[in-house]
Amino acid sequence: MKPLQSYNSEEIEALELALKNEYNEYKSKNLKLDMSRGKPSTKQLDISIDMLHILENNKDYFDENGTDCRNYGLLDGIPEAKRFFAELLDISPEEIIIGGNSSLNMMYDTIARAMTHGVLGSEKPWFKYDKIKFLCPSPGYDRHFGICAHFNIEMITIDMLEDGPDMDKIEKLVSEDETIKGIWCVPKYSNPEGKTYSDEVVRRFANLKPKATDFRIFWDNAYAWHHLSDKHDEILNIFDECRKAGTENMVFEYASTSKVTFPGAGVALLAASVPNVSFIKKQLIVQTIGPDKLNQLRHVKYFKDANGLYEHMKKHGEILKPKFNCVLQTLKNELDGYEVAEWNSPRGGYFVSLNTMDGCAKRTLRLLKEAGVVMTSAGATFPYGVDKRDRNIRIAPTFPPLEELETAMKLFCICVKLASCEKILSNL
Amino acid sequence: MKPLQSYNSEEIEALELALKNEYNEYKSKNLKLDMSRGKPSTKQLDISIDMLHILENNKDYFDENGTDCRNYGLLDGIPEAKRFFAELLDISPEEIIIGGNSSLNMMYDTIARAMTHGVLGSEKPWFKYDKIKFLCPSPGYDRHFGICAHFNIEMITIDMLEDGPDMDKIEKLVSEDETIKGIWCVPKYSNPEGKTYSDEVVRRFANLKPKATDFRIFWDNAYAWHHLSDKHDEILNIFDECRKAGTENMVFEYASTSKVTFPGAGVALLAASVPNVSFIKKQLIVQTIGPDKLNQLRHVKYFKDANGLYEHMKKHGEILKPKFNCVLQTLKNELDGYEVAEWNSPRGGYFVSLNTMDGCAKRTLRLLKEAGVVMTSAGATFPYGVDKRDRNIRIAPTFPPLEELETAMKLFCICVKLASCEKILSNL
Repeated sequence: MKPLQSYNSEEIEALELALKNEYNEYKSKNLKLDMSRGKPSTKQLDISIDMLHILENNKDYFDENGTDCRNYGLLDGIPEAKRFFAELLDISPEEIIIGGNSSLNMMYDTIARAMTHGVLGSEKPWFKYDKIKFLCPSPGYDRHFGICAHFNIEMITIDMLEDGPDMDKIEKLVSEDETIKGIWCVPKYSNPEGKTYSDEVVRRFANLKPKATDFRIFWDNAYAWHHLSDKHDEILNIFDECRKAGTENMVFEYASTSKVTFPGAGVALLAASVPNVSFIKKQLIVQTIGPDKLNQLRHVKYFKDANGLYEHMKKHGEILKPKFNCVLQTLKNELDGYEVAEWNSPRGGYFVSLNTMDGCAKRTLRLLKEAGVVMTSAGATFPYGVDKRDRNIRIAPTFPPLEELETAMKLFCICVKLASCEKILSNL
Repeated sequence: MKPLQSYNSEEIEALELALKNEYNEYKSKNLKLDMSRGKPSTKQLDISIDMLHILENNKDYFDENGTDCRNYGLLDGIPEAKRFFAELLDISPEEIIIGGNSSLNMMYDTIARAMTHGVLGSEKPWFKYDKIKFLCPSPGYDRHFGICAHFNIEMITIDMLEDGPDMDKIEKLVSEDETIKGIWCVPKYSNPEGKTYSDEVVRRFANLKPKATDFRIFWDNAYAWHHLSDKHDEILNIFDECRKAGTENMVFEYASTSKVTFPGAGVALLAASVPNVSFIKKQLIVQTIGPDKLNQLRHVKYFKDANGLYEHMKKHGEILKPKFNCVLQTLKNELDGYEVAEWNSPRGGYFVSLNTMDGCAKRTLRLLKEAGVVMTSAGATFPYGVDKRDRNIRIAPTFPPLEELETAMKLFCICVKLASCEKILSNL
């Protein structure tokens, strides 16, 4: 196989014709497959099914302090749930606020409260500024960007490098502009590239010297325990590094069991310094009487401790590893040598990120959609939905069964090649 | 027994001394009882315990459309849950958004979103006004007032009359002032007075002609099904009346199963016109991926339909009726004739509201607290925590066992009489 760019026009046209025939064959199969989101598969959900029945074997619904978890109370969670997550994140239980079933909702709430009331250290609520800005390492998570767009927060795209976002740029920007109030990070197995921030990157984050007194790092540790195999990434504990730098108040960390137990019925949490936690709890008490404690109890009784969760995550890895292998193997088999795409091989997380030749992502995904397979929209992984180079595609292999995934990936590779041919021909 | 006001000073001093002796006897018992919130008792929680195990008998976790309730999806709830609540509230399923476990949180969210983005029909977000105002029928629910205070919304106290709030005043104010954006209502078995709005009041609400195009009635139907016996109040369906008046967009109705199943793990909802629901869902999709669907499924499988819930509520009534009787009987036995207090006899809800002589509520509750019984703070039932006449006390009889309640109420009556004696003596 030789690089597509080196083909002459006859060769390209011949390849395009052959690909079109292949494509039409797939199209006639009337596929219908939604790979747009990072959803666990049914098999993965079945792993945790015993958790739903864990309270039946234990007729008491009381937490370790005797609080009836069925009743009102405990704004920030039951003590054993705080301790459980504290162990998982290697911080102290006092640094944890347990929420409902969605860490996204907790991030949204954090920013909504900051807009109307500011965060600890704010001179004024964020809405009092004509314009505030967030840094957005990209490609990144579309729902992070959606929150910014909703609150009219200007998004500044930061390139993702091999070991994390472009720290030179981040350090410069935050030190100069006091309207930069935050940055979105998925530090481990990043969405969508599956990259894990290096020790140096984490240390540089902890040592940021923002001009804004109320700048916050939104550390969305969504895939903290989501390894594909025993060979997994490690990441420094940002709070440890912040303590050394005296910047503990600069970080809001989020995590959840959405992709550990049930996406629809997991437990989410916010981790932050004790002063941040105190500040937030004073606002939170106006907002709610407290999250679902029975579901916290289910989780703690089921996992018992961090090790219980780590063992559990291995089962997810066993289901996911073959799917990621299928994606990577198909990409390799079908695209290697053409030099029309690059992709990562993550050791965890939920995605494979692929870059086509510039200007080919939208076309690839339109071709794919017309043949019945939906992936995350092109551009979604960038602020404002605009990928200037129109090349990034987020592949979410987790939900479909392996056989369907294999079909979808073969079709996907045809679409990538077809879009590349069209592009090269149009440039001739 | 003759009215305390007609006692001469010797008589009052003698009574005061006798009461003090009685009071000190109670004090020496070292009581420790928290009657500050409207919390269901353990017995009430036990009624619903089978709901926690309802999914175990049915190994499928799918809603009626086949959506896996364990996974992501369904921003506004599963169809059968929407239908269930629609039947209960006599509206259509399209008018319902299911939330998490807290209707308070849904009310807070509604106002938080209105502050930053406005509601349907807003010319601008509410925070763009120098000052906006809410009408607060009082005595009312302290957490409603807490949300206003949090967002710096000016609260205007509206007197509660026998059949609901003072509609003359409300009609006048909303028609004149476009910065009045909302009103808090607990229309059935109001908190704390247990009053139910008359048909005329509901119709006048539906026919309000507010100057603000984005005025909203926050119809917190917290006690919709919470009768103490078969003799229960009825209330007009405000949406029916609004439809006649063409004002369907003016109402946000809230309800939950917090006091039906579990306060910590119930299901809450917002009901509103279809245009309101569409407007809100566009914002909600930024906020969360969706509430806990498994818990919705538990509720629907357990109750099946509105009748199932009505039958269930009878069991609550059977537990609560004797407690309310105890409160009312003790008040009658101990206070009748002295003319130092007035109270209501509600047919549902969670409270008995008592007015002391002017200037005696704080003192009564301090005496009570010093003897070990905590009730909702004096003033809490009014905006800014200020009861100008210092007379309203919210008695929450639901949580304590009957025997403890009886003791607490006898002590309470002593405190009321003691505070009254002190007041009269100080005025002599």
